[in-house]
Order: sequence, then structure tokens, then C-alpha cells
Amino acid sequence: MLVVGSVALDTVETPFGSVKMALGGSATYIAVAASYFSAPIRLVGVVGGDFPKKHIEFLEERNVDLDGLQIVQEGKTFHWAGKYHYDMNARDTLTTDLNVFEKFDPRIPDGYKRSSYVCLGNIDPVLQRQVLDQIQKPRLVIGDTMNYWIEHKPKELAETLKVMDVIIVNDAEARLLTKEPSLLKASKRMIEMGPKIVIIKKGEHGAMLVTEDMVFSAPAYPLENIFDPTGAGDSFAGGFVGWLAKTDDLSSNNLKRAVIYGSTLASFCVEKFSVDGLRDLSYLKIQDRFRSFLDLSRFDER
Amino acid sequence: MLVVGSVALDTVETPFGSVKMALGGSATYIAVAASYFSAPIRLVGVVGGDFPKKHIEFLEERNVDLDGLQIVQEGKTFHWAGKYHYDMNARDTLTTDLNVFEKFDPRIPDGYKRSSYVCLGNIDPVLQRQVLDQIQKPRLVIGDTMNYWIEHKPKELAETLKVMDVIIVNDAEARLLTKEPSLLKASKRMIEMGPKIVIIKKGEHGAMLVTEDMVFSAPAYPLENIFDPTGAGDSFAGGFVGWLAKTDDLSSNNLKRAVIYGSTLASFCVEKFSVDGLRDLSYLKIQDRFRSFLDLSRFDER
Repeated sequence: MLVVGSVALDTVETPFGSVKMALGGSATYIAVAASYFSAPIRLVGVVGGDFPKKHIEFLEERNVDLDGLQIVQEGKTFHWAGKYHYDMNARDTLTTDLNVFEKFDPRIPDGYKRSSYVCLGNIDPVLQRQVLDQIQKPRLVIGDTMNYWIEHKPKELAETLKVMDVIIVNDAEARLLTKEPSLLKASKRMIEMGPKIVIIKKGEHGAMLVTEDMVFSAPAYPLENIFDPTGAGDSFAGGFVGWLAKTDDLSSNNLKRAVIYGSTLASFCVEKFSVDGLRDLSYLKIQDRFRSFLDLSRFDER
Repeated sequence: MLVVGSVALDTVETPFGSVKMALGGSATYIAVAASYFSAPIRLVGVVGGDFPKKHIEFLEERNVDLDGLQIVQEGKTFHWAGKYHYDMNARDTLTTDLNVFEKFDPRIPDGYKRSSYVCLGNIDPVLQRQVLDQIQKPRLVIGDTMNYWIEHKPKELAETLKVMDVIIVNDAEARLLTKEPSLLKASKRMIEMGPKIVIIKKGEHGAMLVTEDMVFSAPAYPLENIFDPTGAGDSFAGGFVGWLAKTDDLSSNNLKRAVIYGSTLASFCVEKFSVDGLRDLSYLKIQDRFRSFLDLSRFDER
């Protein structure tokens, strides 16, 4: 499994506390979440000379293969700072220092070119396509995007969507991309745009999986406290793709399971700051929470 | 089963069309939805001399017992006018003419005083308690409320909550009532306030059922078009209570089923204007949609 995206240092403030220059970035969260299912996870990204060695060590411990991580010694790592408010659904971005990420040129090492599962984090759709051009016949291409690309590079995004198998977006992005207020209609519109599998993340309301012949609604895990929502969406993507890469089964039933594993990893992520919620998981702990999703949504006819 | 609440004439505009002076009101939607499970439904409410005979006939056809419907010949029926926008989640109230509803004094006919299932629509919490004072040992009291009473009659509402068994509110009302952004924490707080069973309606995101030892997350039925959201919450309450009154089973499993029946009736309600979505249902049609909720949320471990 291959992941391409940002590796960043995040400064985050929430009503429950704050962290400075903590490990973050879409590729980081995706890789760490997926690492609980599949190994090694190949990561392509870029950091500066300031990127702490302890983060490298942590990623290596999690069996993340860093051959594709470019280190620009004279540059600085992408830095994002944001602040969440009381209700945790809204956040203010305080700083976005792209630094070395601004000129990110994703070069795929030869050893990565035959990756079966390719997960494209939220980067310029032109770069996403550039990545795919370097991969030989991937089995499944999963892509994320965001409002910025939808608004500023609609044509490039449309081209990239044609070569994506799975698109993962949040509800606001789905509506912005398709101009459809109904999420069901928006999903069907996205299927027409290319991806055969659409996943809409709805934060505290769970996620929705739509294919041509199936709609699946997954609840969110009900948490009393959300300490830091940063990375929840990427942890979802990592859990989802990691499970698919592990099982290599794209049946409807297994896609639903993958959505629940994604939701499971996202629920662990938000319980602590930065990637701390994903540090000390175990397969058993993950299975336990997966099963509590069963209890949460199961009912019977009589 | 007894229902107390408003019976109104609604003027509604949505991006899909409009209706003028159509049948509406919380007690109306609750009674009509519940009538598909339990009969007769006893209704206590008030209308003016202008209330069209065809509405009386429709309610009687649906087996709604109107002995408790006061008709103030010289007055006018409660009239509400509102407009929904493109995304259907926000609405503007254009007119609220309380008319005869302003002095509504819910008198429970003797024949109604031994009702087992009592559903209190969204009315003044003082009136809700006045109703309960007239009922002999109800088996289950289900109550609705809204932001107006939470803000303007918090003490009275607190007293009424102590005698409610089930509270049904939407997510914004739950947060307003408890000052808790987490819906799980808000639910637990409401359980401390009185009701042993809490239901939070989340519109297009479904509903959440919380008791002391259970959390259940129900999806919303994915509809391509929502023609008119008016009455969805009351139809939910009607389906929920109707199912419980029919089965007289308050086990966790049956409460979950009741939530799905509530969601089912709400989904039919929003497909047409006014109560039209609830006019020509059948038990079979309802069962079919209930089963599609199973497909929508079911997944298995392997």
C-alpha cells in the first residue's frame, strides 16, 4: 500500500489543551492508521531539515517505509496552526506555512511502482495524477480532495476524478463539488464523474458509502470528549484502505467493514492530540471497538 | 394512546412548490403517523370554526378519535407560515397566528383518562403537566419540547421533565437544554433531569436513542428529494409511540425498532407536502421501508 500526501508539524489549540509543532499531515495520519492492518506502508512526502528525528523513529516503528520521504535539508517542514472552538465542528486556521511542501514533486521510488493500493491524500489534483502516471496498474486508487481544489482547480480535479476508484470527501465538499444539497444525489453525481465508490464523511454523524447498487450508513462512535479532531478524516481513510489492502476483497460486505474500520481509527484519533490516539493501539483494541459499532447500529425485525 | 398538541393550518413554501392552509400541527402529524400501528388514537387539541370539514373527515378515516378536539366556533385555527431554502435544513417562519391555540386549555375527556401511552406534542410545559395531572397512571409519557420553552420557561420545563419517561428533541435543542456540545453527554444529562429514555433527532443524519445502558444510532432514510420537511419530527414521534403502543414492549430491542419505525414514518412524511406523505400508506409499505433500514445499516464481522 502506497500513501502520498503531506507530512506536517501542527500547532493545535482546543478547549481541552494545546500542542505545538506536533506530528501531523494527511500522509502521516493515513499511514499510521493503515499500519495497524497492512505492512509496510509506503509513504511519499516531503519534510524539511527541521523534522524531528523522533517522528522518523515513530513512523519506522509503525512499519512505515520512508524510502519515499524526501528530506530537504535546507528547508522547513510544512507547518499548520489552527484553533478549535467549543463545539469542535468549526475551526480557524491561524497559520499555513507550506514551506518545502509548496514545491512538493512526488517522485515514486522504483520499488513502489507496483503498489496495489494507492491512497492519495489531499494534495493538488495535478500532483495526484502525476503520482498515478508513475504507478503500474494499481488495483485500487483512493483519493481525497478539499474545497480549495474544488474551487480553484475544477478542471484538473475533474480529470483526476476520472482515474480514481474511491473518493473520500466530507459532506460540505460533496455539496460544493456537485452543487447537490441531497447527499444521495451528490454521491450519484460523483459516481458519474469517475469513482465507482463514494464515501462521504459526516463528522459526528458518521459516514455514508455509496456505490451503483448499494447505500450504507455508518454511525460515528459516540464519544463523550473529542480532544482534537485534527486528522480524523485521514485516520478514517487510513483505516479504510488499510483494511482493504489487508483483505484484498472489494465485495460490498467488505467495503462496509472497511468503512467501520475507518470510523474506528477516526474515533481513536480524536481521543488524544496529534497522532497520540493512534500510538498504542492493538489489533484487539481495534476489534473491540469495531464490535461496539455492531452493537451501536444493530436492530432486528422481531 | 393519547396525543395532545397543536392542530394547525400551514402555509409552506419550498424550492419544490408550495401549499396554502394545508393540514398541519404537531398533534395531527403524531396522530396520523401513529394511526398506522394503533387504533383509535385519542387526540386533544383545539381548532377554530374555520377548520375545514375535509380535515375532520380525513382524521376520522385514519381512526383518530376526535372527542377531545375542541372547536371554538367564533375563533380561527392556529396558522403557521414558513419558507424552506435550497438546503432544507434552515427555514424562515413568516407568520405565527396562534389564534384559538393561544388560550388552549387541554381538557381530557373522561374516556381518555386511562390512556396508557401519552404523547405530549410541543406545547407549553405547564400545559403538558396539566395534561398529565388528568391521566391515571400512564404506562409511558413521551414528550417533545422546543427552543422557545427551553429559553423562556426553563423552570417549568425542568418540572415537566421529571414526569416524562421519554424525551424527543433535536440536536440543537439537546445542546441548548443541557449546554453540552457532545450529544452523548447531553443525553446523559437529560437522563439525570428525568426521562429514562432520550431520543435526539438529527434530521438528515438520523436519530440517536440513549438509555442508561444503551446507545443506538439510527440512520436516516436516504432520499433524493425532500419536498417538505414540515412535520418530520412529529411523524417520527408518532411512528415511535404508535409502535410501542401496538407492541406494549419496552425492551431495548423493541425501543430500537420503534426508533426505526419513527424514522420510517418521517421519511414518508417529507416526500410530499403537508400530511400527504402519510395519507395512503399501508402496513406492507411501512414494513418494506423498515426492512430497507436494515439493509442500510447492517454489516457483519466477517
